[in-house]
Order: sequence, then structure tokens, then C-alpha cells
Amino acid sequence: MDYNRITPEILFEITAVVGNENVLTQRSEMENYSHDETEDLHFYPEVVVKPATPEQVSVLLKLCNQHLIPVTPRGAGTGLSGGALPVKGGVLLAMERFNRIIEIDEQSLQATVEPGVITEVFMNAVAQKGLLYPVDPASKGSCFIGGNVSHGSGGPRVVKYGTIREYILNLQVVLTNGDIIWTGANTLKYASGYNLTQLMIGSEGTLGVVTKIVTKLIPAPTQDVLMLASFPDNNAACAAVSAIFRAGVVPSALEFMERRGVEWVIAHDGIVFDLKDDAGAFLLIEVDGTNQEQIFAECEKINVVLEEFGCKDVLFADSSAQKEELWRMRRVMGISVKSNSVYKEEDTVVPRAELPRLIKGIKETGARYGFESVCYGHAGDGNLHVNIIKGGMSDEDWNTKLKDGIREIFELTVSLGGTLSGEHGIGLVQKEFMPIKYSETHFSLMRSIKAVFDPKGILNPGKIF
Amino acid sequence: MDYNRITPEILFEITAVVGNENVLTQRSEMENYSHDETEDLHFYPEVVVKPATPEQVSVLLKLCNQHLIPVTPRGAGTGLSGGALPVKGGVLLAMERFNRIIEIDEQSLQATVEPGVITEVFMNAVAQKGLLYPVDPASKGSCFIGGNVSHGSGGPRVVKYGTIREYILNLQVVLTNGDIIWTGANTLKYASGYNLTQLMIGSEGTLGVVTKIVTKLIPAPTQDVLMLASFPDNNAACAAVSAIFRAGVVPSALEFMERRGVEWVIAHDGIVFDLKDDAGAFLLIEVDGTNQEQIFAECEKINVVLEEFGCKDVLFADSSAQKEELWRMRRVMGISVKSNSVYKEEDTVVPRAELPRLIKGIKETGARYGFESVCYGHAGDGNLHVNIIKGGMSDEDWNTKLKDGIREIFELTVSLGGTLSGEHGIGLVQKEFMPIKYSETHFSLMRSIKAVFDPKGILNPGKIF
Repeated sequence: MDYNRITPEILFEITAVVGNENVLTQRSEMENYSHDETEDLHFYPEVVVKPATPEQVSVLLKLCNQHLIPVTPRGAGTGLSGGALPVKGGVLLAMERFNRIIEIDEQSLQATVEPGVITEVFMNAVAQKGLLYPVDPASKGSCFIGGNVSHGSGGPRVVKYGTIREYILNLQVVLTNGDIIWTGANTLKYASGYNLTQLMIGSEGTLGVVTKIVTKLIPAPTQDVLMLASFPDNNAACAAVSAIFRAGVVPSALEFMERRGVEWVIAHDGIVFDLKDDAGAFLLIEVDGTNQEQIFAECEKINVVLEEFGCKDVLFADSSAQKEELWRMRRVMGISVKSNSVYKEEDTVVPRAELPRLIKGIKETGARYGFESVCYGHAGDGNLHVNIIKGGMSDEDWNTKLKDGIREIFELTVSLGGTLSGEHGIGLVQKEFMPIKYSETHFSLMRSIKAVFDPKGILNPGKIF
Repeated sequence: MDYNRITPEILFEITAVVGNENVLTQRSEMENYSHDETEDLHFYPEVVVKPATPEQVSVLLKLCNQHLIPVTPRGAGTGLSGGALPVKGGVLLAMERFNRIIEIDEQSLQATVEPGVITEVFMNAVAQKGLLYPVDPASKGSCFIGGNVSHGSGGPRVVKYGTIREYILNLQVVLTNGDIIWTGANTLKYASGYNLTQLMIGSEGTLGVVTKIVTKLIPAPTQDVLMLASFPDNNAACAAVSAIFRAGVVPSALEFMERRGVEWVIAHDGIVFDLKDDAGAFLLIEVDGTNQEQIFAECEKINVVLEEFGCKDVLFADSSAQKEELWRMRRVMGISVKSNSVYKEEDTVVPRAELPRLIKGIKETGARYGFESVCYGHAGDGNLHVNIIKGGMSDEDWNTKLKDGIREIFELTVSLGGTLSGEHGIGLVQKEFMPIKYSETHFSLMRSIKAVFDPKGILNPGKIF
């Protein structure tokens, strides 16, 4: 696709829509918008534009569509697959001014928010009403809810509460022709034609620009217990995961961390933790609810399972400070690797019971290709994040051979019934691996759906396929 | 669209695919396939074909696509919107031979089933393993899980456990060109391109033919309490619904029944029930879990709310026989109206707190147009089924004026933030009302998506739009 460059005339029109102060053209001003959290990738747009209303987005999209200018929508730029990188230049559509919580409806337990609201800000506003919006990616303190929608985001509580797909009821979306639609209705159930809401979720900004989000809310749990269980090795910890569900318990979080990950955050992030010699891997397990007896009964069931799988030690967090510290250990693991090493992050997901095979295969592949990895993630969902660390690998091997290793990991993931990404999306960096899982027929359907919404291909080009 | 008729040559080819015994051409044999549970509508196909493998479906679709023969996929024929009616003739693709439960994976808590499995048969098979597949439409004893997928079905337990959308992980689908694909992966999370699984759910057999279904399973609750609360009037009962959630409780069922519905099933279905004079409306409330203390605490909270909203009497079911009888009262309500009167059924859904306004409006519309209605449904989801009874309405009014009344009901539904159907689908009979809610832009997107999957328009023509 040959896109056009932004001419001074087009820039003038853009500026007329959003005002001078919401258009950035200097390279220095645009630096923050040239990358996300994906490796060390940088792509500069020709211009950063910050609209504040659906109507402004409508005029901008129409204009860019007419002139064949690429448009890359961007949330907070916390993505891990390069989805928000303006790889073809053009307009970077920064959604940060869409930052209003429009309504929290305590009667129907729904909320309407703009896509540029920080996820945790929204969660806290909802919590103040005694309600829960449970979709909490690790980056919740900085990511936008709009980005969460675009990536079909998850987080630790998916295991009990479901992914963002189960909380998004309706979306206001601007199409490339400038039309503004609502994808569905503000209802908990929907059987009124193709579900455009669900199609939009996880489409990574390639089908339309989301400008309003209606979410479902639920009553908040009033108490929780957090425990950290240590196991002799990865295999034992991963095998315990599916046994916990078979014991009849659905924890509100069930996170896996390998020893290497804990060592890493102790070394780099000032985490204070008494790491015993025989602790090979950990499960961080949260049980929540509204009734103490019930929670304790569930913990008891979990304990029985943990022992069966060789768990040596269970640490119960006995204060909210200790809970926060254990969660911080888990949450910083990804960012810690990113900040301290050249790295690549993969987001594998398999059926829950296949986790032991997956992690074993990842380590074997690493041994064969000479890379180290830090593995952790939402084990309860079968979702394992793999941080590959350059370590002693030569630049040449890192730039050439590593790809074959990653390919092997994805081939294993797919052979176990899984797929390439559970919550990070495909974006720019994973698209080359898509053919491992998907056929030409599948691609052809996706490409044709793309063409329905964006016939000229101006929206977030170069992503997914 | 001008379709072709099935010639003897084409019939010969069809028969060669599935065998003589799986092709019906006599009108008498096809009677059962000429209707579903929607009003008194009958449409005969030219031929009923019963494939048993994805490969057979593939050959059949390819053949029909080549010859421009309409193909209408059909589950158990329990639909309430005419979705399975072969309105353009052609092939009725009866999926009843796809009746195997292929695997219940107790390790990963997933199952793989064929679309022609009866929902309750599947639920029971899963329950025998101590697991729960909670999607239980009223017709669960006869409907197929494939039909549930096609309609995005719900049922009473959606309110706690979510709709079928949250339980379908992956679908094997045959496309009109004969290609067989899996729409996703067997994983609890999915961020790997457009979610074709979710697009397929609720598409009413217009995009492809589902031949295998991978579902999520969850640990089964071990106990429940069922109570029937009576209120002075519809408004009080409906208003209590959203207050129950605000009190921090999510019941596993929260069903509304108006007095007229209870009178109706007492009169027609041998239901024995002591209907008090001051009982104007009912909520049937189920709370489930694994811990008795927790369940009782939740019931206590619910009781406080019920009293606040003027509830006069709460009946606790104290045996499984009594539970079954209360559930039967709710379940037969729809079929009772269908069996004893000329009727039309609408499937309105609104944000939960708008229920009182919705039911008030429905009754006012009825009074104005001279029709009686029996209202009941999944109040916890804001999903109200409206059975319109012909009663004393003249044939002429029934056939002409009633439509305006229904239109008014849908206009009200939409004005309250709702939509035309929460779980029954649009099918044939609701499509004329779709423009009340959806714009030409929305239709155009849906039509174009349809064309991506089925460029010649052979699959279930005449439905949704």
C-alpha cells in the first residue's frame, strides 16, 4: 500500500480540527509517541494529533481516509507487541484527552468511560462505590482502558472474573469514513445480529477508533487471602495449577513465578524476600469473597492440593502491606527484565493442564539456543509470559538465531492447543509467527473483515497480518 | 437473490455424500423440519440432508455454493425467532447426527462436543465429573448446543455465570467454499487477531456451519437455596432486582414472573401453587455456592432487600422436589402460552435498572392496542420475555395493528438503552424491527461481513437483515 505524506495543506486542516496546541510536529516532542513498551523499537509519526471528541476523530479519519494517510491510534503506550507504533508514519492519534469517566451507574451496575482513562483510576472510582471492575493488567497504573479493549487485555483476576470481553457491553466507534456508531447495546445479553462489540475487542485499532466504552460492573468482594506457595521446581508448581480447579476452587488470582524471576526482582528492584534454597518455583494464590468461613474453607482445599504437589512452604500475607509487597514482586517482574537487559517478551497461552509441558519445552529450547528466560504469568489461565534475556548471547545470534528459538516455542504452544498471545496482542512483533497457527483461509477472512471496516487500509497499518 | 432449485442431478450428488437414508424429500417426512417453536410458521425445504462429519458438510456446502442453492442449518428446532426456517427452500442441513460428546478434559476443564448434542445431555455428562457447564436455556432438555452457539443463548444462570459467549473457546466451522477452519484456540484467553469465535457466536448460521465446539467448564457449586418472593405488583418486583446486586449479592438465578404467568401455568399445566390474592408478581431467586454459611448470609442480605421493596411472602423450597416444581413453573411458562393460545413472543433486554419502566410501558401499550401479555424472564440480566396473547383481539387487528404495538415496545426498549433480543436472536420474525435500533451504517457493516464469509449468500438466507 502506498500511503501519502502529510502535506502542509493537510496539516493545516488537521490543526483546524483540534487546535494548534494539540498537534505535535517536532521530533523532540514526538519522542514519547515513537515507542511503546516493546523492546527497543522506535518509529516516528509525521504528526501527533490529540483529539478530544468523537466528532473530531470523525473529521480526522475522514480527512486521512480521503488523502490516504496512515492513522495509528495510541493509548498510554504500554503495549508489549508494538501495536501502537506508527510504522508507516502518518498521524499518531493520541487518545489521552479522552480521559473522562462519564458515568458510574449504580442502579444498573454499568459505567461509561472514555478510552483515555487510566485503568486503575477507573477501578478506584468504581471501588469507591463498593463495586468491582476486575480487569487489572500489570500495567494498570499507567495503561488506558481503551488500550485494554484494543488488546483484549487480561490480568491476574481473569481466572475468576473473566477477561475484558466479559465486561465490555458496548462501544462507540468512529469508522474510517467518519461514521460514528455504537457497536451494540448497554445490556448484559445481546442476540441482535453480529456482535460488533466483540469483533472490535482485540482488533488492535485496525478496524475503528473507540471513543466511548460501556462496561459491566459487579459487587466487590469484601475480603481476600493471599498466599505464596513454594515448590521444588517449575513442573510441580505448574502441575498444581489445574489440580486446584479440580478440587472445586476458583481462586481470584493464580500466578506462577519461577525462581529466576524472584531472584531477578530481588537483585534489581529492592524486593525484600527470604528466598530459600529449595524454592524452585512459586504460585501466588489469592482467594476472595464476602465470607471469611468460605474463604478459609477454600484455602484449606488449596492447601491439600499444594501438599500433594510437593509444596514445601506456604506464606500467608498477614497485612495489606505484605499483600502489596507480594503483588509488587509479581507485577514488577516484567518491567524489571525490560529495564535491566536487552530482552524479548512472548505471551504464550495453552490449555491450563499443558503448562508443565510448555515451560519444560521453553527451557529446553533456551538451553539449545543459548538464551536465558524468566517465566511468570497467569498460570490459572494457562497464560505464561516468557521474558527472553540476551545475557551472554552474541549480537549476531540474538539478531538471527533467536528467531528460530522463538518459533520453536510458538510451535510447541500451538501443538499443545494454544496460541501466540493470550493478552498482549499480535501487533508488529508477533505477526511473523502467525502462520504457525493460522491458515491462509484464516488470514483471508481477517483481511477481508479489515477491508469491510477500512477499505483503504489507513488504520494502524502493518499490524496483526 | 435468485437461487436455483435442486435438480435431480444435484440431488444425486447430495445423496452420494450422505447416503440415501440421510436424505429426505417427501413432504410428510419433512414436516418436522418445516417449523421451529416460532409462532405457527411453516416453510418446507426442497430436501432435508443429514450429514455426520465436517467433511460431508464441506462437500455439501461447496456443492450448494457452486449451484447457488440455499442452505439452512438446523439444530433441534427449538428457536423462537424463526432462525432455522428454510424460507428460500433449498437444503435443510439437519445437524442431529453430530451428537457426540468427543471429550471432557478434566485436567484443563474443557470439553469438545458436536453441535447436535442436547444441551442437558452435555450438562449432565459434565456434572457427573463434578463440573459445571452453566448455560441452560429453558429448552435445555431438547435444544442442541450448536443452536445455543448460533443464537448466543442464555438462560437463568447467566446472571451469575455469564452467557454462552464466556464458555465457548473455539469452534470448528465449515465455510461456504468448503474450507474447514478452527476459529481460535482451546485457551481461556485469546489476543491473536480478530476473534472469529465471538463473531460466529450469535450469527445464526449465516456465516458458516459449526461442526465442533470447545467449551470451558468450571467447578460445580455443591449446594443452593431457592426462594420465591411475592410482591404487590410488577413494579416492586422489578425494582428489587437491581437492589439485590447493590446489596453485594450475585444470585445464581433471578427470574421474574408476573401474576398472570403464574395463573396461566396453574390453569393449563397442572402446576399446584397456592396463589395468594395479594401476590402481584414474583421473583424466583437461587443462590448457590460451596459453603452453607456463605449462602445463608447471602439469603439474609437478599431478604433485607426484598422487605424494603414490599415483599409480602418468601417461600423457601425445602426439598429438591419443591425446587424442581418451582423451576418447572418458570420453565413451562413460555411453552404453556404457545400451546394454549395464538401468541407472539418478544425477547426484550434493557439495562437492569430500567426493568420497571419497561414492564410498565409494555402493559400500557397492551392496554392501548387491546392485547394481553404474559411477562417473565431473566430479570437479573434485564432480559424480559413478553408473550403476547391474541385473546379477544380480532384477526384483523392481530394481523395488522399488533405490529405497531410491538414496534412501540421495541422503541421503548431501545430508548431505555436496550435492544431487540437478549438471547432468542433476530432470525426471521424480528428483522423488520432491527431499524428501530440499528443504522444503515450498522447494517452495511453486517452485510459486508456476511459477504466475507458467504459471498453468494447461500447460508440461511432471509435472516437477521
